[in-house]
Amino acid sequence: MKKSLGPGTLAQPTPVWVVGSYDMEGRPNMMTIAWGGICCSKPACVTVSVRKERHTYPAVMARKAFTVSVPSQAHVQEADYVGIVSGAKADKFAATGFTAVKSGLVDAPYVQEFPLVLECRLLQAIDLGAHTQFIGEILDVKAEDSILDADGHIDMRKLKPILFAPGSSNYYGVGELLGKAFSLGKAIAG
Amino acid sequence: MKKSLGPGTLAQPTPVWVVGSYDMEGRPNMMTIAWGGICCSKPACVTVSVRKERHTYPAVMARKAFTVSVPSQAHVQEADYVGIVSGAKADKFAATGFTAVKSGLVDAPYVQEFPLVLECRLLQAIDLGAHTQFIGEILDVKAEDSILDADGHIDMRKLKPILFAPGSSNYYGVGELLGKAFSLGKAIAG
Repeated sequence: MKKSLGPGTLAQPTPVWVVGSYDMEGRPNMMTIAWGGICCSKPACVTVSVRKERHTYPAVMARKAFTVSVPSQAHVQEADYVGIVSGAKADKFAATGFTAVKSGLVDAPYVQEFPLVLECRLLQAIDLGAHTQFIGEILDVKAEDSILDADGHIDMRKLKPILFAPGSSNYYGVGELLGKAFSLGKAIAG
Repeated sequence: MKKSLGPGTLAQPTPVWVVGSYDMEGRPNMMTIAWGGICCSKPACVTVSVRKERHTYPAVMARKAFTVSVPSQAHVQEADYVGIVSGAKADKFAATGFTAVKSGLVDAPYVQEFPLVLECRLLQAIDLGAHTQFIGEILDVKAEDSILDADGHIDMRKLKPILFAPGSSNYYGVGELLGKAFSLGKAIAG
């Protein structure tokens, strides 16, 4: 029996991604978001939603660029910190000891210590209410060798990205391999 | 050392959600997507991206409505099937044995057998290229009692949603609890 929980942002799971930008004073900044996802295959695009009050908002709008750095679960504490504290009040790179690397493709920094990075050019900023959705074209994806499998694909069990559960506000890791997409279902297709 | 993988939709992880709609003949249909996420807190909005060629596209455009049903990993085979086969060629509810429930709030059906459902009113359809991004206002969230924790929140370890890994096309389950958001990072904030 299903119970109504009312309107709410309770889709599960959501990712834990760190958005990198240069702020209005040119300082590298980062913020953690869970409202985001892939939104188009060609051009390859990713979306991240940010409130207008956030330090990241004018930064992305001004330079039309951002990065998405994907933390491993070993950095869950730092990723949470980056989501709690404003870049207006603290140098979050200094506080975490992380290294800001200037992207060679877009005018934004990424987090060297995180194993997966997307460098994005801002395509659209869609004001939806509390949040503005930034749609970025992914100009390059950079990954540590250590998270790639034998075929050169990102291995999620090596990357160990973090999941966020809206509602409970719990973080979870990635679990067991369940199988191959575009393959498992063929038995039903017959 | 980071290696360039080129532009691509390689953000990790992405969700596995089933989008429900009534097709142009009024038949309930569903398709599996991994390009989506939450995009705004107020109004609560979720985004799902669909190619124009898909059977779901004109259905959502015509009725300005869709649902998101979140499968548990027990239904990973069915969820994959629903992403492989077109509703133009098969009755996917019949093939899977799933039950289409007409939403009382929007003109779209959801999957009774899946433990979590979002009922959405189409707010915007943004053509990005290969995909159109549907932004839906979440009018209600419905969850099985069995996936709620003692506080009434969705328990991701009970829901057991499926993750999709772009690149490898592997499906994964949810792993261990890593901690509480807006809390873990306080030690660094000092």
